Amino acid sequence: MPGPTFLEGDRITLRTVEEEDLDFLQRDVNDPDVWRSLGAVSPVNAEQEREWFEERSEGDGISLLICDDEEPVGSIGLSGINETWGHAEVGYWVTPDAWGEGYATAATELLVGYAFDQRRLNKLVANAFDFNAGSRRVLEKAGFAEEGVRREEAFIDGEFVDIHRYGLLAREWRADD
Amino acid sequence: MPGPTFLEGDRITLRTVEEEDLDFLQRDVNDPDVWRSLGAVSPVNAEQEREWFEERSEGDGISLLICDDEEPVGSIGLSGINETWGHAEVGYWVTPDAWGEGYATAATELLVGYAFDQRRLNKLVANAFDFNAGSRRVLEKAGFAEEGVRREEAFIDGEFVDIHRYGLLAREWRADD
Amino acid sequence: MPGPTFLEGDRITLRTVEEEDLDFLQRDVNDPDVWRSLGAVSPVNAEQEREWFEERSEGDGISLLICDDEEPVGSIGLSGINETWGHAEVGYWVTPDAWGEGYATAATELLVGYAFDQRRLNKLVANAFDFNAGSRRVLEKAGFAEEGVRREEAFIDGEFVDIHRYGLLAREWRADD
Amino acid sequence: MPGPTFLEGDRITLRTVEEEDLDFLQRDVNDPDVWRSLGAVSPVNAEQEREWFEERSEGDGISLLICDDEEPVGSIGLSGINETWGHAEVGYWVTPDAWGEGYATAATELLVGYAFDQRRLNKLVANAFDFNAGSRRVLEKAGFAEEGVRREEAFIDGEFVDIHRYGLLAREWRADD
Amino acid sequence: MPGPTFLEGDRITLRTVEEEDLDFLQRDVNDPDVWRSLGAVSPVNAEQEREWFEERSEGDGISLLICDDEEPVGSIGLSGINETWGHAEVGYWVTPDAWGEGYATAATELLVGYAFDQRRLNKLVANAFDFNAGSRRVLEKAGFAEEGVRREEAFIDGEFVDIHRYGLLAREWRADD
Amino acid sequence: MPGPTFLEGDRITLRTVEEEDLDFLQRDVNDPDVWRSLGAVSPVNAEQEREWFEERSEGDGISLLICDDEEPVGSIGLSGINETWGHAEVGYWVTPDAWGEGYATAATELLVGYAFDQRRLNKLVANAFDFNAGSRRVLEKAGFAEEGVRREEAFIDGEFVDIHRYGLLAREWRADD
Repeated sequence: MPGPTFLEGDRITLRTVEEEDLDFLQRDVNDPDVWRSLGAVSPVNAEQEREWFEERSEGDGISLLICDDEEPVGSIGLSGINETWGHAEVGYWVTPDAWGEGYATAATELLVGYAFDQRRLNKLVANAFDFNAGSRRVLEKAGFAEEGVRREEAFIDGEFVDIHRYGLLAREWRADD
Repeated sequence: MPGPTFLEGDRITLRTVEEEDLDFLQRDVNDPDVWRSLGAVSPVNAEQEREWFEERSEGDGISLLICDDEEPVGSIGLSGINETWGHAEVGYWVTPDAWGEGYATAATELLVGYAFDQRRLNKLVANAFDFNAGSRRVLEKAGFAEEGVRREEAFIDGEFVDIHRYGLLAREWRADD
Repeated sequence: MPGPTFLEGDRITLRTVEEEDLDFLQRDVNDPDVWRSLGAVSPVNAEQEREWFEERSEGDGISLLICDDEEPVGSIGLSGINETWGHAEVGYWVTPDAWGEGYATAATELLVGYAFDQRRLNKLVANAFDFNAGSRRVLEKAGFAEEGVRREEAFIDGEFVDIHRYGLLAREWRADD
Repeated sequence: MPGPTFLEGDRITLRTVEEEDLDFLQRDVNDPDVWRSLGAVSPVNAEQEREWFEERSEGDGISLLICDDEEPVGSIGLSGINETWGHAEVGYWVTPDAWGEGYATAATELLVGYAFDQRRLNKLVANAFDFNAGSRRVLEKAGFAEEGVRREEAFIDGEFVDIHRYGLLAREWRADD
Repeated sequence: MPGPTFLEGDRITLRTVEEEDLDFLQRDVNDPDVWRSLGAVSPVNAEQEREWFEERSEGDGISLLICDDEEPVGSIGLSGINETWGHAEVGYWVTPDAWGEGYATAATELLVGYAFDQRRLNKLVANAFDFNAGSRRVLEKAGFAEEGVRREEAFIDGEFVDIHRYGLLAREWRADD
Repeated sequence: MPGPTFLEGDRITLRTVEEEDLDFLQRDVNDPDVWRSLGAVSPVNAEQEREWFEERSEGDGISLLICDDEEPVGSIGLSGINETWGHAEVGYWVTPDAWGEGYATAATELLVGYAFDQRRLNKLVANAFDFNAGSRRVLEKAGFAEEGVRREEAFIDGEFVDIHRYGLLAREWRADD
């Protein structure tokens, strides 16, 4: 059973990441479909996953589990939080079995509201590989605008890959609400 | 089952916080209604709750569990204890299911008496968000006087929020008793 | 000779605090007129002053030396920086020989502009003892509004002393500029 | 049960190395047929195997378990990764009971594709003892070319032994694909 | 006298950063014209500059002093080196007295050649504030193409400021040579 | 003045590396002609040179200064010493002003004799870039045989570069003596 609910949406809850969730997380970050979409090139064993967890608990980023009822279906978080200038990066992944259900969009919208309404951030940014049409659609549905293309900045499946850079300003999000 | 009773009132007891209480505490500090009322903006997983517990056990603040019989219904404590000048800050929260039962008032009165009668403090202070009418009523019932408004000092639910600052002097409390 | 200039005003410069400045700083924080005005109740020997310096270098507050030409005349800084909500506390002192020259006002105005224009803060707060008419005048000249009186919260010269609490919002400061 | 699948081939999977696999690994690296083929001259007790595991988890090499279904049959990895120049060394062993089944070839081909397509390496190298015809065949089947003979560089079974040095360039591998 | 020459150009040399250069570096990173152009919001005293130096010596970034003869006129380096994907960020500043002499362009061209020819990088990126026309001209002269505008991502002089994001691919640079 | 003589030849001495030699060593390892010939891609400041020196003093490799009289002209050493199998790698460089004087050959012959006669090694190996005809001549004069070409294994001046691998067996050296 996952940890307590920190943010609650219509279809999903975002819950704290607990030690009991490490099996789920480790299985997924080693899934070739997931690590390709994250640009995370190395295998992660249980010990390394636990180290990530310990460091994450001490760092200033935010990690939450995306859950449908009490079933974990993915993970979302904020990293690179720059509080002086007021921006942070949103990152997420959904377990392959649950793709196409709208979980990433629901989670992103919930986290965006939290970031702007509770953390006084001015801007959220996100990155998506050129081949990841799904992730780009999620960001666009959540109101992000493309701000540029980081040309050939990743190397995946034998090719240099463009990274699309997205941004959403607090004032755009409030106007849109 | 919670720890032994440290302070005993008519309706409630204030008991030591034990490792067994961390589940209860963690669930509540992640409850959106609770963390908004505390201005505690980040999710807290079990490991981080335990770290808080370890540090709290070593620090010089006071944390107690508010219990009805042996049922925990919230938490209260003293922080920022300045023994040279003789003041400290009172803080508390009650689990949402138990709101409106007078637990916070009962606990505050008990802790105030302890602070003045046992710790030789000259003054207690407390803070409440403008939207938290419940918390302000608790403080006023316990004899606190409003000493000023810290204008737009918090940022909650997308707006800058005023914080009401309260104070209660030992001599006021004794006169009132 | 003090460190390089970080902020430059008409009459003064605010410079980095260097190891060579510790003698000046230590002499002044032990001056009864200074420590009374700061509420800093304990003597500080050279070793303790150095420890303060080491910790200050690692912390996230800001400390600057107020200089007239290259002559140090006091110190000013930001502490308790809360970047999530966007507020910080301004504190300063001027060496008794240089009182009445307007150094504190000039330094406060320079630091306020920096805090709002370069650090995205929403509010600055400050505290002044009831008997410290000079400090209260400095804050009022710099545009701060009194937000309340923390009654009898300090104990100085045998009496409980009120602390006046001041605040200045970024939007007030910009309107005023 | 071994860890999650990181790379998936037709006949085998390459999985993360978990604490539960240490028994299997320790038994095999102490097997005279295995340690001779690796040039690993010292016995490894369970404690030493665990130390290897801890260090491996922190280092920048890659270790994976070769599995048939969920049965571990060997180990493969990359070491000496030089990312500036873009080369790394492939090493592997298969448990003696499973020799002759083509596991090493299947694992090497899978890891080679990963190294070139996901890690932007320019070259892979490998070493095989002169007496290890099996290992040399595996490398040749996987497309490696012999680049020289390190004469009498090892000492095994009472004799100085030549080491054959192999290399495979990314462009050769792509042309061959 | 600065350290030995690591890279040599027609007009300038890039030399190792030595302890003797810390005075020069500290004075400049506290210069309001420099720290605004770097987005480096906090004062840096000699002790903090030394800490930066110690950490820099241990990290994997590259820092070099830009020198005209043996006179230091600025600093340039690579940070955020991602060797797996082959990209890094170029950053530089020139002491205000030496602006307009072409030092930044000469240093950038020298470092770009080193990054592509000696470190096997595939791409260099750089960022320049919208108001920093000088820095944008330097990047364009060195062959960088603008890849997007990170809208309102910095906060400087009281306003949210756009950051222009530039990129230069190894193959573009070689074609151009 | 360099340290005491450890090995003495006709024209040169090999002396211990002392702290006083670090200036000489640092200047040379930052010389573009030297670091290219060593494949040492990063600048080394005095602090990092000292760290290398401290670590070297604790490690099990051998570093000696090549001196003509008491004038240092280069450095030579053994690294990667494998005592079980009896091999090690020879590496050296000579300061550019002293190239063509035969210092490297004299030093290599002296060190080779020491390695075989005093350390019971069975084999010495060495590597030279394809473009480094001078270094290859030194190795051949000292009796090393080419054992293979590590194709395109380095990346220098914008190209993948072959590395020639040399070996010299104790019995060859003794026969030759």
